[in-house]
Amino acid sequence: MDQRISFITLAVRDLDTTREFYCAGLGWVPELDVPGEVLMIKAGQHLVLSLWNVDEFEAEVGPIVRGPGVVPVTLAHNVHERDEVDAVLSRAAQAGATVHPAESRAWGGYTGYFADPDGFRWEIAWNPGEIGSLVLPDVGGPR
Amino acid sequence: MDQRISFITLAVRDLDTTREFYCAGLGWVPELDVPGEVLMIKAGQHLVLSLWNVDEFEAEVGPIVRGPGVVPVTLAHNVHERDEVDAVLSRAAQAGATVHPAESRAWGGYTGYFADPDGFRWEIAWNPGEIGSLVLPDVGGPR
Repeated sequence: MDQRISFITLAVRDLDTTREFYCAGLGWVPELDVPGEVLMIKAGQHLVLSLWNVDEFEAEVGPIVRGPGVVPVTLAHNVHERDEVDAVLSRAAQAGATVHPAESRAWGGYTGYFADPDGFRWEIAWNPGEIGSLVLPDVGGPR
Repeated sequence: MDQRISFITLAVRDLDTTREFYCAGLGWVPELDVPGEVLMIKAGQHLVLSLWNVDEFEAEVGPIVRGPGVVPVTLAHNVHERDEVDAVLSRAAQAGATVHPAESRAWGGYTGYFADPDGFRWEIAWNPGEIGSLVLPDVGGPR
């Protein structure tokens, strides 16, 4: 099995709210938009973020876990410069996200989180290490 | 904010079990392996799958939701040919995964799921549509 992730699917309660946040708020452009069903957004060279109506998700995958606490998954968006972390978190806050301000981390990076309308956590990260370089598109190239 | 996902992080209970499944079972090669803490695996051109000890995850992100039901997130691995879906699910079953056999879907594709040792759902998908083409590396090129 090749080491490849093609889609990341998040089950969402209300696609209109989700579209408002990601498209109007963050400025992302959908690749596919079927109101009430699914919103797909390109998030890498061969990667799509799929925001899927929770009822359809549950019909296919099964009942989701509910209750207090965060989903045990985060999505990270890495940036080239430390200062960009605060700028992106500020943009997310303007779009209505709950923001957990960035902190210097023991491993040498600087990261913070925001929660989307369903509470899914995005980490905005500056990672000056080797793994950090791996995930960054070349400066000057397509970003 | 650029449309980019750099890391997908899953909180896992036991990294040795996780390593056994993804590395010994699926044949994936870690980019970074810190026993008991984190296992990072390249999963796209600028994308890393990070399998992080749940205690460390909770210390940074917060208590996770617990209880019956599946996490409202799936990761898809798309393949070029319909037959490959069953082949990959079979490989995952050999590695110890619980498999939900593939079915033809109303939108024209053929997909099934497996659950990793923590219950995270992977969808193995053949998608003959436009969005399906978008996520597939070129045949003959790096896959």
